[in-house]
Amino acid sequence: MTTARAPSSPDRPTHGGNRNWAAQYAHCKPEEILDFSASINPLGPPQSVLTVLTSHLHSLKNYPDPNYIQLRSALSNFHNLPIDWILPGNGAAELLTWAGRELAQLDATYLVTPAFADYQRGLKAFNATVIPVPMDLETRSPQAGIAASANCGLLLNNPHNPTGTLTLRENLLPYLEQFALVVVDEAFMDFLPPEQQQSLLDLVLDFPNLIVLRSLTKFYSLPGLRLGYAIGHPDYLQRWQRWRDPWPVNTLAEVAAIAALNDRSFQQKTWDWLPSSREALTTGLQALPGLSPLPGAANFLLVKTDVPSTQLQKDLLRSHQILIRDCLSFPELGENYFRVAVRLPAENDQLLAALTQALEP
Amino acid sequence: MTTARAPSSPDRPTHGGNRNWAAQYAHCKPEEILDFSASINPLGPPQSVLTVLTSHLHSLKNYPDPNYIQLRSALSNFHNLPIDWILPGNGAAELLTWAGRELAQLDATYLVTPAFADYQRGLKAFNATVIPVPMDLETRSPQAGIAASANCGLLLNNPHNPTGTLTLRENLLPYLEQFALVVVDEAFMDFLPPEQQQSLLDLVLDFPNLIVLRSLTKFYSLPGLRLGYAIGHPDYLQRWQRWRDPWPVNTLAEVAAIAALNDRSFQQKTWDWLPSSREALTTGLQALPGLSPLPGAANFLLVKTDVPSTQLQKDLLRSHQILIRDCLSFPELGENYFRVAVRLPAENDQLLAALTQALEP
Repeated sequence: MTTARAPSSPDRPTHGGNRNWAAQYAHCKPEEILDFSASINPLGPPQSVLTVLTSHLHSLKNYPDPNYIQLRSALSNFHNLPIDWILPGNGAAELLTWAGRELAQLDATYLVTPAFADYQRGLKAFNATVIPVPMDLETRSPQAGIAASANCGLLLNNPHNPTGTLTLRENLLPYLEQFALVVVDEAFMDFLPPEQQQSLLDLVLDFPNLIVLRSLTKFYSLPGLRLGYAIGHPDYLQRWQRWRDPWPVNTLAEVAAIAALNDRSFQQKTWDWLPSSREALTTGLQALPGLSPLPGAANFLLVKTDVPSTQLQKDLLRSHQILIRDCLSFPELGENYFRVAVRLPAENDQLLAALTQALEP
Repeated sequence: MTTARAPSSPDRPTHGGNRNWAAQYAHCKPEEILDFSASINPLGPPQSVLTVLTSHLHSLKNYPDPNYIQLRSALSNFHNLPIDWILPGNGAAELLTWAGRELAQLDATYLVTPAFADYQRGLKAFNATVIPVPMDLETRSPQAGIAASANCGLLLNNPHNPTGTLTLRENLLPYLEQFALVVVDEAFMDFLPPEQQQSLLDLVLDFPNLIVLRSLTKFYSLPGLRLGYAIGHPDYLQRWQRWRDPWPVNTLAEVAAIAALNDRSFQQKTWDWLPSSREALTTGLQALPGLSPLPGAANFLLVKTDVPSTQLQKDLLRSHQILIRDCLSFPELGENYFRVAVRLPAENDQLLAALTQALEP
């Protein structure tokens, strides 16, 4: 079995974060790759999480609680929302499967593009009719293309991946009146300090046609552990629960999530690190010939490039063991863009130095 | 959100292994429950697994390899089958979801009953037409009821849960000629020593309509970690891969599985422990008034009881903090049966002593 691959590049993985492929290409060990392709918080995982993981290895001999009461209570407290409106999943990606099935029952689903490849996967898995809504990459406003539609769904993410655009709440509100179901993937929202977030979470109680997806693995650097959650009307969540197996979230993910949500100091540290690091990286990229980073609100930057992105990717891997995210899985972007995570200042400087060398005439 | 519950008992969980519910009932901590309800190897988890888990916590900051090459290679070596015929999953339960979807595309699926409740869940989730094939609980032979059917599927498990019956390979072979798709859940097959196993694994290359499901979490005592796998024709497995998210198996489950498969000494220890422990428990149960254990080939025993099973369950919880598996989720069994795992000899003796007391007139 192989996963779907970009047609022009038989050995390149579709998703970011495939360090095994990169290591083979760079002739090094996977752990030697400096990975800018996966948008993961470089400050984590928090020590508080590693501690509970170590102390809970003995719990693996028991099944997880099929009702995930402790985890859902912790999320309920964190977001100040009732427990029945919360469904944890095996990563937000697992929940995209069921969101895709839900949307497939409507006449069509509007999808803001470029879109994370897994949205198409979730929708196509259940033969959904997809209506792409291309984002204008200059103005980065998709709104013009989204028309009211009674029995249709809308799937978007905020902040948007891969552009990093943050859409204001007030610009999303009209969709809640227009669409039968609005699924908002807020996988990167927690990277914004609370006062800058534009989450729709607090609207779920008023809009039974709104489902918000969240991830805990990006902010807390635990993508290997798999943990996301959906927040929305219990009618939806109970149906998803009947569709899927009884224990989708492993025991370690459950205890890690509870510890992570309580780690206010790690959260603050992340909010302190990101803005200045992102700004410095943006400035550094702007200064390089042929590169134009788009302003981004999340922990990654989309960069327009005059040199084809896969050529840059190969140069950086071979000469510097640095992995950037090509955009071949976003057909609208192709070779003209790449995406990089914002990492620690010294690592960002390594990236800038490597790019400087790669772009020398 | 709540999971489905047995109608007669609003607070009793459908599945076994819910120690939280039991602990509430027994007024103790979950870890104080002596759990005979989940059929988990009491010798595990193996130290070899705990060691790799500890040393791989740092890997959680990376995504799992979406192709799971290392895990699939280890399984490929273990079973001497090509890697493309192997698909790991987030527990066998996740794979039952996709098996259910596959079977739902056929005219109907024959299901040997009593059946693990999750089979019905996987089939109903995709509106499959289910034709129950009741097993004669005296002779424990379902074969008479299974008639040849061209465009139909068959879902069964071997050894059978909850009866513990092992069906001989030769008795299953005719189904491979008769059914469009045969899914055999062999979640407990590895508890039998290799020379006694009746697995169909080696037939998958000859029968593209055969899919075998396996679990690693029961034998290696890791139900909290979630890991199972499907073995079958790549056409099926590739389709399942397109239906589901790219990273269903967490990184720790992957490294745990590789270590577990290599731990031949743990495997031998388990095969040495089980037969005599099961025999002693069977003999002990037979000696108790009103109890008749069915002979079982796996690591659990189904026991016919004259006293209603939920009454026994409550007595054992309240007075001894011992949890047995009632059979309310198997409508064919109801109050007349309970199931117990085979545990360590001293624990089995505790169970027998507690039952003796509970059954005293």
